[in-house]
Amino acid sequence: MNFIHNSWDLKYRAPFGALPKGSNITLSVYGRDLNNVQLRTLFEESEVLYSMKPSATSHYWEVELQIPDATGILWYDFKFETGGCSYTYGTKGNRLGGEGQIYKDIPPSYQITIYEPKRTTPKWYKNGIMYQIFPDRFNRGSDFSLENFPRKVLVHPKWSDSPHYFKNNSGHIEYWDFFGGTLDGITEKLDYLKSLNVSIIYLNPIFKSKSNHRYDTGDYMTIDPILGTMEKFKKFIAACKERNIHVILDGVFNHTGDDSIYFNRYGHYPELGAYQSTESPYYDWYTFDHYPIKYDCWWGIDAMPNLSEMNPSFQSFIFKDDNSVVRHWTRTGISGWRLDVADELPDPFIEGLKIAMLEENPDSVLIGEVWEDASRKVAYNQLRTYFSGFELDAVMNYPFRETFIAFVLGKTSAKIAVLVMMSLYENYPREQFMGNMNLIGSHDRCRILTVLGEADEYADHEHYRLTKEQYSLAHQRLKMLSLIQMTFPGVPCIYYGDEAGVQGFEDPYNRSTYPWGKEDRDLVLWYQQITKLRADNPVFQHGSWKPYEASDDLFVFERRDENTCCLCLFNRSLKAVHLFQYLDYEGFKGLEMITGETLSLKDPIILQPLAYAIVMITLDTSQAL
Amino acid sequence: MNFIHNSWDLKYRAPFGALPKGSNITLSVYGRDLNNVQLRTLFEESEVLYSMKPSATSHYWEVELQIPDATGILWYDFKFETGGCSYTYGTKGNRLGGEGQIYKDIPPSYQITIYEPKRTTPKWYKNGIMYQIFPDRFNRGSDFSLENFPRKVLVHPKWSDSPHYFKNNSGHIEYWDFFGGTLDGITEKLDYLKSLNVSIIYLNPIFKSKSNHRYDTGDYMTIDPILGTMEKFKKFIAACKERNIHVILDGVFNHTGDDSIYFNRYGHYPELGAYQSTESPYYDWYTFDHYPIKYDCWWGIDAMPNLSEMNPSFQSFIFKDDNSVVRHWTRTGISGWRLDVADELPDPFIEGLKIAMLEENPDSVLIGEVWEDASRKVAYNQLRTYFSGFELDAVMNYPFRETFIAFVLGKTSAKIAVLVMMSLYENYPREQFMGNMNLIGSHDRCRILTVLGEADEYADHEHYRLTKEQYSLAHQRLKMLSLIQMTFPGVPCIYYGDEAGVQGFEDPYNRSTYPWGKEDRDLVLWYQQITKLRADNPVFQHGSWKPYEASDDLFVFERRDENTCCLCLFNRSLKAVHLFQYLDYEGFKGLEMITGETLSLKDPIILQPLAYAIVMITLDTSQAL
Repeated sequence: MNFIHNSWDLKYRAPFGALPKGSNITLSVYGRDLNNVQLRTLFEESEVLYSMKPSATSHYWEVELQIPDATGILWYDFKFETGGCSYTYGTKGNRLGGEGQIYKDIPPSYQITIYEPKRTTPKWYKNGIMYQIFPDRFNRGSDFSLENFPRKVLVHPKWSDSPHYFKNNSGHIEYWDFFGGTLDGITEKLDYLKSLNVSIIYLNPIFKSKSNHRYDTGDYMTIDPILGTMEKFKKFIAACKERNIHVILDGVFNHTGDDSIYFNRYGHYPELGAYQSTESPYYDWYTFDHYPIKYDCWWGIDAMPNLSEMNPSFQSFIFKDDNSVVRHWTRTGISGWRLDVADELPDPFIEGLKIAMLEENPDSVLIGEVWEDASRKVAYNQLRTYFSGFELDAVMNYPFRETFIAFVLGKTSAKIAVLVMMSLYENYPREQFMGNMNLIGSHDRCRILTVLGEADEYADHEHYRLTKEQYSLAHQRLKMLSLIQMTFPGVPCIYYGDEAGVQGFEDPYNRSTYPWGKEDRDLVLWYQQITKLRADNPVFQHGSWKPYEASDDLFVFERRDENTCCLCLFNRSLKAVHLFQYLDYEGFKGLEMITGETLSLKDPIILQPLAYAIVMITLDTSQAL
Repeated sequence: MNFIHNSWDLKYRAPFGALPKGSNITLSVYGRDLNNVQLRTLFEESEVLYSMKPSATSHYWEVELQIPDATGILWYDFKFETGGCSYTYGTKGNRLGGEGQIYKDIPPSYQITIYEPKRTTPKWYKNGIMYQIFPDRFNRGSDFSLENFPRKVLVHPKWSDSPHYFKNNSGHIEYWDFFGGTLDGITEKLDYLKSLNVSIIYLNPIFKSKSNHRYDTGDYMTIDPILGTMEKFKKFIAACKERNIHVILDGVFNHTGDDSIYFNRYGHYPELGAYQSTESPYYDWYTFDHYPIKYDCWWGIDAMPNLSEMNPSFQSFIFKDDNSVVRHWTRTGISGWRLDVADELPDPFIEGLKIAMLEENPDSVLIGEVWEDASRKVAYNQLRTYFSGFELDAVMNYPFRETFIAFVLGKTSAKIAVLVMMSLYENYPREQFMGNMNLIGSHDRCRILTVLGEADEYADHEHYRLTKEQYSLAHQRLKMLSLIQMTFPGVPCIYYGDEAGVQGFEDPYNRSTYPWGKEDRDLVLWYQQITKLRADNPVFQHGSWKPYEASDDLFVFERRDENTCCLCLFNRSLKAVHLFQYLDYEGFKGLEMITGETLSLKDPIILQPLAYAIVMITLDTSQAL
């Protein structure tokens, strides 16, 4: 018995991938001796059955339909009879799409993401290279002064010390430790960032807060005095503009700090906070179970009381009012927001925020913190509509990170990596796929070198450093991983210091300082080279993407535009791999972009273990492949 | 049955008090119907019995003897028979001297301290007013810089924050917290100290160390870089000299830090330390039970390995060599040393150190940290010879502190206070009594206001502050206590900030910063007034001392020299106390030194609760009392 549908093959599904609402689509299956072949679709709550007809090609059955004229997901699978029995067919258990399998019962369905093609993501974003900065830890500017610090915090005098949580006996953080990075400190290092071809800076929160991470906002309208002033911020923005660098701020709208204007648990602010009185203008922003001591908070952390995002006064404050948070800061010249814990924000809130943001700056972008496939993310039993066209321009691409770390470490095969990426490619509207914020490190994950060096999990996390051998291997692996990042569709994001050899386990050790003067120079040079490769070659920014199925250890894909075809080859294994036997570019001349070697493509190339090749083939239009 | 001896009454013991070796003394007793009256003396291990003879005064018996021509303590008591029975007589169970009591068995003996009158303590010291500074917490000088801090310490950006111990899970201090006081910071405040009539600064340790208290010396020859440099130190000394201020350093010779040149447990120093190798030149300075991990250390704190003070190479390093620690620093212009944990230092070590110190500066002083009556301190089963004449010029007078705090708080009577002070007056050679470092606060005790405000012991020690009412009472009590201190024989020592209203429980809360700009101005003005009173009136510096037995609540003593008699009256109770009924200065005119009122002494003065009077009577020699 055989029955085939492959959502990634135009023979079976055309067009490929996510579709604008109301589009037409043709779905086909292959099989012998089939009867009563049906397509079952599910959109929101309603199921429709379509009879499939034999197509012009023998053994193929097809149906053409118009997908709903509304955003969402159209799920589909198949029913058929053969040999007198009924079967179903759907995607494999991994739900990634591609080729599926036969079931007896209701199968996992295939997905068609339906979106409204409202907007093309700005080129500055899609073509950019991003750099994430945790502001306290990047650079202590020449304006650093202990005078700017509030009471009862700690400063590490030595920039190279380890971050540390200073907790009291009940496990609450009693002292926040600071290294004293400032906005001026970042401004002073913009030329370094330019040397890394950075065109977008994503700043972790910078508003006045109690903590060093500042995700517990104290005052949405004020730059944290430790970092600087509004003047310093404007100076920073101006210096970025001079260098064509765009700035994205972290928008933390799911919760505030308990030590804030709005909640004011400790009375540190002059305003009447929600914790202090039910008469507070902010009282309705929060949800109290038992006033005032029991209230909804993020992950049960009482320092971060949750906000009621649908509260009209809160929405006015955040994005509706003329001087709302989003409008105020967007007008300072920033180019967008990264939405913290987007999964916790109601869709109408994100939509409203997006409208306000675009009203203030039509060229800005909204990026969501989503950890999974964002096209079908279900949060609180509800399918999210991030990619409807009204919400996010992009998401943080954690699946990219997980997949390619696993590949580089030898924990998953190139084949699986291709499946996972193909699934995103299929499910994400093209603008979102090309805008994917492809990250390797972040403030929420162990430092990449520590991961790639396979650090001893049972070691003392604060002081652990890789051995020389581990470091050397991690360094080599990071070169491969970062090169995947720089050649992959989406916007590569470098977590400050990853390019300079910074190590560290989980929070807070992943937030240690940028090692000025003690960088891994070889790695910095590498990053300068590969970011230049990306910046100088538009094919990496907008070219189509096509993965090749090679071997377990060899990951190969092609980027292509009108003028160029680029083959990107990554061999993770510790054995040598022959390569061009798989590929058919005979007759072309290629340029290997890392070494600068001109390649004759007649002979197989041999990729050494942990080696890579980026082979650029300038297409002669008369010789199109 | 009656039998009387009173060691404080010249009728019974003449001369009074401690005596130079080989002196003659007459001891007498009073009693009726006595037979076989004997004096028993004990010096070192040998007992001598003297028969006492009836004296010229009826019912008195006496014996004159020469005390040993050697330093030490001559103990004595009495035997007699009456009514056919044998009795003994000695000092009361409190062992304070004065009037004794009859016993049946061996009684507690009276004490005669025998010393060698080798030296008169320098006048600058005896006449001085001292100020103790914990260097990290006094003043952040204009030279303060985070650059001067070593790795892995913490700085409190806010000067007003609470000190805190940052311990790891095993209770060891993981991070030392600093506020960043510097030597320049002290230099910049010398004029303030002059306004307090300070003429001696006692500095807690200043040598390079791991901790903020620096009792764990890392390098005896180097100023801690956080505090400054040798140059800054010389500048400080020069600025002190300009203002006639003498400087006393803390000599910590019982132990080093484990993180030191000498022990070098962590390899932070280039030298080969005792912990690192038995070949270390410092190996013999320490005592290892199980090399290298188990070693003798102070109070079991492994960060402070004990030194073998009798080791010749150690003694050479500390005081014998020409460039030894004591000689090197004494030559910089300091005026003496305070010996940390003197009880742990062998007598020959202290004697050797004293010789070296005096060779370098004959006008310098040596002060010991001893917590009890130092004339008869027994440590490790051995009577210490601090006051032999070869060792200490003075000790920290903790009995003064305990006694008068108890008096001011109403926990002990004026009578008991007199007994305790008389006992010291009797037992201490006069130079040592007049050189007593009379302290109210120190880095080893709760802040005096916290004590006098009767702070709630069960409160959160870090954040506790007295209520307004408590503070007001504590403030008033401190005025009385500090006035006792400034009028009492001995050298008053002010613990930095006690004069400015600083509160705090035990270590580390007793080491918080001097509150520049937030001083209790009234208290500062008070200290300026009373230190001026002491500084301007030599009778307080060298006058004789005579306590009066008044009432439980009224403590009265007289200071007197050739020209002046000063009555010092302290009424602690919350009731008014009539006063001059006890005193017989009729016909003299007095000046109350605090209010400036001229007093007619015919009428009784009424002292209000918690009031005091310092009545200065200029003596007309023709009218000697």
